[in-house]
Amino acid sequence: MAVDPALLARIEASFARQAFMTTLGARLVRVAPGEVEIAMPVSAHLCQQHGFVHAGAVSSIADSAAGYAALTTMPAGNGVLTAEFKINLLSPATGDELRARGRVVKAGRTLTLAMAEVFAVTDGRPKLCAMLTATCMTIAARDGVSD
Amino acid sequence: MAVDPALLARIEASFARQAFMTTLGARLVRVAPGEVEIAMPVSAHLCQQHGFVHAGAVSSIADSAAGYAALTTMPAGNGVLTAEFKINLLSPATGDELRARGRVVKAGRTLTLAMAEVFAVTDGRPKLCAMLTATCMTIAARDGVSD
Amino acid sequence: MAVDPALLARIEASFARQAFMTTLGARLVRVAPGEVEIAMPVSAHLCQQHGFVHAGAVSSIADSAAGYAALTTMPAGNGVLTAEFKINLLSPATGDELRARGRVVKAGRTLTLAMAEVFAVTDGRPKLCAMLTATCMTIAARDGVSD
Amino acid sequence: MAVDPALLARIEASFARQAFMTTLGARLVRVAPGEVEIAMPVSAHLCQQHGFVHAGAVSSIADSAAGYAALTTMPAGNGVLTAEFKINLLSPATGDELRARGRVVKAGRTLTLAMAEVFAVTDGRPKLCAMLTATCMTIAARDGVSD
Repeated sequence: MAVDPALLARIEASFARQAFMTTLGARLVRVAPGEVEIAMPVSAHLCQQHGFVHAGAVSSIADSAAGYAALTTMPAGNGVLTAEFKINLLSPATGDELRARGRVVKAGRTLTLAMAEVFAVTDGRPKLCAMLTATCMTIAARDGVSD
Repeated sequence: MAVDPALLARIEASFARQAFMTTLGARLVRVAPGEVEIAMPVSAHLCQQHGFVHAGAVSSIADSAAGYAALTTMPAGNGVLTAEFKINLLSPATGDELRARGRVVKAGRTLTLAMAEVFAVTDGRPKLCAMLTATCMTIAARDGVSD
Repeated sequence: MAVDPALLARIEASFARQAFMTTLGARLVRVAPGEVEIAMPVSAHLCQQHGFVHAGAVSSIADSAAGYAALTTMPAGNGVLTAEFKINLLSPATGDELRARGRVVKAGRTLTLAMAEVFAVTDGRPKLCAMLTATCMTIAARDGVSD
Repeated sequence: MAVDPALLARIEASFARQAFMTTLGARLVRVAPGEVEIAMPVSAHLCQQHGFVHAGAVSSIADSAAGYAALTTMPAGNGVLTAEFKINLLSPATGDELRARGRVVKAGRTLTLAMAEVFAVTDGRPKLCAMLTATCMTIAARDGVSD
């Protein structure tokens, strides 16, 4: 399915304002209705004491992928905030790149459940390393909190 | 209670190896048996699209505070990995500095439950902005995964 | 602090309508602003295959204790629904009785974070066996969903 | 795929020992490697104050479905305990019957991540009403904790 250019532009513009994604070296790689994918190269500045990517950095791209997946289902101008998320860390986050694939499980008026799977990619082979579920809250358009 | 200097040195050395904490601008501010506190100045490079600290950055210091609190209860040489965590984001993470206070709820042989509260500090006044619970796994000493 | 009789009556009336609490043999033992405690005798009809109280039964009283704690902070007529909860099961739920102590962590307009600790009581000695955090949603008064 | 009769017998025998499932009126409807489905008729004795099935009852069949899905991947004689679970309640649990479909996300030596989706079935039409993720712990065979 072709992606609505307006939707794509909206998510890209919001992502570009997430300075933390730049800090992480993360980039938006796919936007579709209810689905968003984010990639982040494995890099020393993201690691914890054992040389794996820190659970917090893994969570960061998983949360953004889930939140933006939720945002794709909301009317333009509305914003999204994560009310809570839970992540299971299944294997060491290592390799060349991490890929977080977010998707909406159920969109609601106030609350939307989204999830994200994170894959550790080594030599092109993905391995599931984390799974997140997030409760995303729709914020009606108002100054400072939209998209 | 005076802190065991060996315990303090152990946690400080491990924290110093968490390059991601340096990326975040986070520092260790308190270590006690079963308790660890981490501070992180609010900074533009940590923010999401609305100007609040990204939920992932908040989670990162909360996870490290909880994980290190768990590590203080484990014999030296053992390592700790987060198996899963859940975080509720209660109010916008903003202000001058965030403080994550981790503590052990129940230490077990294989699994330890730890929690962390994150406070947004503005002009010296703390406001609870997030609460995390984490299941931490004890990793018996082996190459590459200790402390 | 003396408990407001109207608040107590409101929670008791709602609890009495929770037929599932009767099925479990659970009873309300304490109501205070932001705090509710529920007791449930350990009984064979609640157990799983190893003879411990089933995690779902433990969760049920923990969820009700957290939800009612949240309800004590909401204006009369409003209802409360659990949007999500997470529970860590720390030790086998066994002994004479389980006690779930719920309390509000942060009350909000739409979402309230509450938690509950569950103690397994044997010969009068409590042991922490589970900890739950719940996101409770305020439902504005309307037919069928209040208190 | 035909189900291994020994596996089926093992899960059925364990399920039959879960007295709480009998209390709930729940029954095992499907067993396959890594997948288990449980059905529970909606009944007044399971409900909360608004007439919906209590979140704890929904969680109970979801937890059992996830846990038994995990158990299908473990060697006979080993037992499974839920270390923690998180459930999002997406819509009122009502209708004729609830169906919890559990499946393994990633099986590990010590910890297995399983999930369950719960559907509220009305006039044969299923509607997703809850989603659970659970961390299941493998318990090496010992007295009282197996299967």
